[in-house]
Amino acid sequence: MLETTIAAIGPLDESAMTAARDLQARLTKPAGSLGALEDLSVRLAGLAGACPPPLPEPAAVAIFAGDHGVHAQRVTPWPQEVTAQMIGNFLAGGAVVNAFARQAGASVTVVDVGVATPLSFPPEAAAGTDPAAGAEVSGGAEAADGRAVPTGGAAGATGGPAGAAPASPRLVDANVRRGTRDMTVTAALTPDEVRAAIGVGIRIAGELIDAGAGVLLTGDMGIANTTPSAALIAAFTGVDPAEATGRGTGVDDETYRRKIGVVRTALDRHRPDPADPLGVLAAVGGLEHAALAGLILGAAARRVPVLLDGVIAVSAALAAAAFAPDAVGAMIAGHRSAEPGATVALRHLGLDPLVDLGLRLGEGTGALLALPVVTGAVRVLHEVATFDAAGVSEK
Amino acid sequence: MLETTIAAIGPLDESAMTAARDLQARLTKPAGSLGALEDLSVRLAGLAGACPPPLPEPAAVAIFAGDHGVHAQRVTPWPQEVTAQMIGNFLAGGAVVNAFARQAGASVTVVDVGVATPLSFPPEAAAGTDPAAGAEVSGGAEAADGRAVPTGGAAGATGGPAGAAPASPRLVDANVRRGTRDMTVTAALTPDEVRAAIGVGIRIAGELIDAGAGVLLTGDMGIANTTPSAALIAAFTGVDPAEATGRGTGVDDETYRRKIGVVRTALDRHRPDPADPLGVLAAVGGLEHAALAGLILGAAARRVPVLLDGVIAVSAALAAAAFAPDAVGAMIAGHRSAEPGATVALRHLGLDPLVDLGLRLGEGTGALLALPVVTGAVRVLHEVATFDAAGVSEK
Repeated sequence: MLETTIAAIGPLDESAMTAARDLQARLTKPAGSLGALEDLSVRLAGLAGACPPPLPEPAAVAIFAGDHGVHAQRVTPWPQEVTAQMIGNFLAGGAVVNAFARQAGASVTVVDVGVATPLSFPPEAAAGTDPAAGAEVSGGAEAADGRAVPTGGAAGATGGPAGAAPASPRLVDANVRRGTRDMTVTAALTPDEVRAAIGVGIRIAGELIDAGAGVLLTGDMGIANTTPSAALIAAFTGVDPAEATGRGTGVDDETYRRKIGVVRTALDRHRPDPADPLGVLAAVGGLEHAALAGLILGAAARRVPVLLDGVIAVSAALAAAAFAPDAVGAMIAGHRSAEPGATVALRHLGLDPLVDLGLRLGEGTGALLALPVVTGAVRVLHEVATFDAAGVSEK
Repeated sequence: MLETTIAAIGPLDESAMTAARDLQARLTKPAGSLGALEDLSVRLAGLAGACPPPLPEPAAVAIFAGDHGVHAQRVTPWPQEVTAQMIGNFLAGGAVVNAFARQAGASVTVVDVGVATPLSFPPEAAAGTDPAAGAEVSGGAEAADGRAVPTGGAAGATGGPAGAAPASPRLVDANVRRGTRDMTVTAALTPDEVRAAIGVGIRIAGELIDAGAGVLLTGDMGIANTTPSAALIAAFTGVDPAEATGRGTGVDDETYRRKIGVVRTALDRHRPDPADPLGVLAAVGGLEHAALAGLILGAAARRVPVLLDGVIAVSAALAAAAFAPDAVGAMIAGHRSAEPGATVALRHLGLDPLVDLGLRLGEGTGALLALPVVTGAVRVLHEVATFDAAGVSEK
């Protein structure tokens, strides 16, 4: 599955990009006045092979959840069971990603690709990787202060494609392994486990696109997952672990120093070869990282844009780009995470983020904030009048 | 009207801000992980005097249009009649601001506060400043390549508050004077003309808020208007004209040098006192700048947030802040315009922009791109579950 997906990924369509540049020049605005949005619209025309490219609607967020053996090295003060607890929060609609997804009209699919804690949701909530079989769990949480927490997509939906309120968040059980091994002691994953997780991501991309998604957004959940992200970024870009490692949820100085040491120890032990992305993911990756790389490759193979969230997403994107350099053409950097490694990875990928607001939450929240910018960039090519048609004089 | 509006502007409510900070700390996310959105949500609680503050919905864009006597100094290659032609484009729904407003579910009100060219729209399209009397002009333009240009708000609306597609763009005739005088020769406006234009902005703010708007977005249209914007920014902040002046629509080197010289000449002639904003606006301002200052003051007096667009907006915001320093509490910087003066003005106001994508179009486009970020920041306080309610462990 990985090899056929990689083989399907090709370069951007130059003639569609030329058509988009020509159209931008005839629209009623000074040339270049939409800045980065013009470049983005041209690239998306190249990805779709059409001008204008389709509007990136509807949007689908895929949150891959996994746990990490390196949690044992005390790289975070948060207990590991929070990964599973937050999945409950996602399914109840109470997390930030849910609020942003409702606003943007995006669907939310939660994929357990490597959670350590057995999930205690009803059996129908974990019915397999077929989206049709995935139960729609719509619990609902009660907030403090009498604030009602909407469940699913319909209640608070504003911002979605007209008349298409997304369904409630959905859980897919695709657990490859109950968390990775501790990368300071041994390889985090076997090559077969990496392949299986990548396959989960490719399959989810295909299912979401088959169901109509016009853009995929990466999401992630996994206590301790900024540590393997830093290791992946250092491995793929060659920067020192101190440059790739950040404070994650906001750890103190002592934990931060320990975290850098943990990344350094893992890289010294495995010395992964950046030209062998499967080997890098096996040595120091996470199951959600491998699945995200698969999602990105799957989207690129279908020529559908994939909007990257924060440091976990961009570390996975480095793996995807190592598998298939042309996959970068399908990637849009949603935001610049406050994690320093994210900036290192974006620079390596040659991507400029659309939003830069100091977020460091993950879940897909930064990608969702950037989604209206992407849609707006494409919408200009669809809806804005030309100078000729509008009877506006040119300079 | 100006004095009573200024008198109604007060400081942010500290207890609501404390409540918002406390709530943010209990929500299911690491403390501080939403970066700038957390600070924004706290400030909007302070503005509203309530936690959570109301969602900033629906949104209303007010585009103030005016012309400039300084156009005679050849500061731009665009003919002056483009101001009026673009108003036709706005009303037909064919401009970028229309595309972005449809996506965001925002209404568009175009206000002729100082256009030089007599507008040739049907009489009912310019029926006065009463929004109820303002006709809904919905022409419709035909784009090239068979692309249909939607008219009004309903056709392409995605992203708006559910079930509340905004009406078609509306034109308000509030022309104070058919363009300003050439500021290199004489004062651009009389104090009475400035007062009248400020009054237009205050009145439009009140009418939009009375009609239900939860946030106002600034828009502008006026060929040559980056030149008075640069003069206003230099006057209010004290920077040299070369630092405040940019290339506007993208003028060539010769025009750019001339433009800096024009700003310098005007400031040398009038030597406006930054402590006298009415005098500054009369000397080197535009009618749309004065009206925008009025809109901002009107919103601040009603404690409704006002989302600033680009360099024209922020130069007007300097005037508003000089009239009433507490008005800054109601201002949100939508984006960082590519015009260098915008950054100078934002620094002076102490505002960080939400979006920074190299836009230099005006019309309200940058404010509209930032709107989902503002809505998302407030939505978090409404909809995200607390650790207690969601059963998620803390570190």
